Amino acid sequence: MESLKRKLRDFAKARDWEKFHSPKNLVMAMSVEAAELMEHFQWRTQEESRNLDRETREKVKQEIGDVLVYLVRLADQVGVDPVQAAEEKISLNETRYPEDKVKGSAKKYNEYE
Amino acid sequence: MESLKRKLRDFAKARDWEKFHSPKNLVMAMSVEAAELMEHFQWRTQEESRNLDRETREKVKQEIGDVLVYLVRLADQVGVDPVQAAEEKISLNETRYPEDKVKGSAKKYNEYE
Amino acid sequence: MESLKRKLRDFAKARDWEKFHSPKNLVMAMSVEAAELMEHFQWRTQEESRNLDRETREKVKQEIGDVLVYLVRLADQVGVDPVQAAEEKISLNETRYPEDKVKGSAKKYNEYE
Amino acid sequence: MESLKRKLRDFAKARDWEKFHSPKNLVMAMSVEAAELMEHFQWRTQEESRNLDRETREKVKQEIGDVLVYLVRLADQVGVDPVQAAEEKISLNETRYPEDKVKGSAKKYNEYE
Repeated sequence: MESLKRKLRDFAKARDWEKFHSPKNLVMAMSVEAAELMEHFQWRTQEESRNLDRETREKVKQEIGDVLVYLVRLADQVGVDPVQAAEEKISLNETRYPEDKVKGSAKKYNEYE
Repeated sequence: MESLKRKLRDFAKARDWEKFHSPKNLVMAMSVEAAELMEHFQWRTQEESRNLDRETREKVKQEIGDVLVYLVRLADQVGVDPVQAAEEKISLNETRYPEDKVKGSAKKYNEYE
Repeated sequence: MESLKRKLRDFAKARDWEKFHSPKNLVMAMSVEAAELMEHFQWRTQEESRNLDRETREKVKQEIGDVLVYLVRLADQVGVDPVQAAEEKISLNETRYPEDKVKGSAKKYNEYE
Repeated sequence: MESLKRKLRDFAKARDWEKFHSPKNLVMAMSVEAAELMEHFQWRTQEESRNLDRETREKVKQEIGDVLVYLVRLADQVGVDPVQAAEEKISLNETRYPEDKVKGSAKKYNEYE
């Protein structure tokens, strides 16, 4: 992830694209990529989404790459370590959703964010 | 990231939430989190987005964590390594957008996806 | 819809909020509202999404209102009639997806955009 | 809008596509279209977003049509009148954000949802 961050910095700098990379623009780009990723699943059933054909899986992989690219670039621009942020969120969720209280419950799950 | 993936597997398993974690559901959740992250930027100017106050930055950090959590979990469920996917995308973009052709150009930039 | 457009113009003007209502900002706000609407469906099955309880349906209604508010406001700011735009798109789709060619087909449907 | 709703019903029925039109699927499709609309604005400044060239404006128009198509179809499937929902939301917002309290204020605006 650290290496990814540096590559993206170099990529933008070499192309003089830093001026386009405000957090406002980057978050839009990331959200657009998230939707392009979602597009592959919109007409599929949940079951079908668990069994992608090879061609779709390859496209999905590329879109996952796009989302991560913009997420890492955005995090860099606002000075946040994304992996640390995710780990802190998981710790928080472990407290919020104790195993014995929420186990298998859809109701509790709907409150989960 | 590898450790993140394993924590998220354990988290879902311990709560019997794997049944909710179809790729279709996970991509929706990731897209919703991406929008929650975007919400912090919607009325800010690009300049303001480059200078977040401490409180907003903390909230942004948490939302970045949420997006990464669902992205890693989704990638795991479809059998994709997200960091590798991002690196492959960067390599592809280096070929697509040669420095000397696109330098500082907004026009070229608009074709960039 | 015409009346909605006028109400939204008056609303923004009376609050001196027109300066915030650039198309760039409005499209972000609309996309965030779309995600808030989607959030109500992310952990539900397709079957459950067809049978919402009264409380959820009320929340869904409010979010549908929010999306439409920003869509109408955005369309006004870029000088587009949204209903006309939708009707033109339907006409186009009638040509693109002839009944006898696509009937009930998931394959054709996946190509549909 | 009433006519739009009926056309969309007929369109889906004639193609036997009703089975794909669960609210869960439709909200995903609407959210994807919202992002495609947003894509046209992601690298533009706010000023540029207020002055679209003719070609971009035409594409924006088509995407606005797409978002409205899915919003109307979704609203129909959950039994909501979207225009009424929007009008109720405007009334609510008039109470929440009294003109004299929020006039021109970015701070108040950031609390606005």
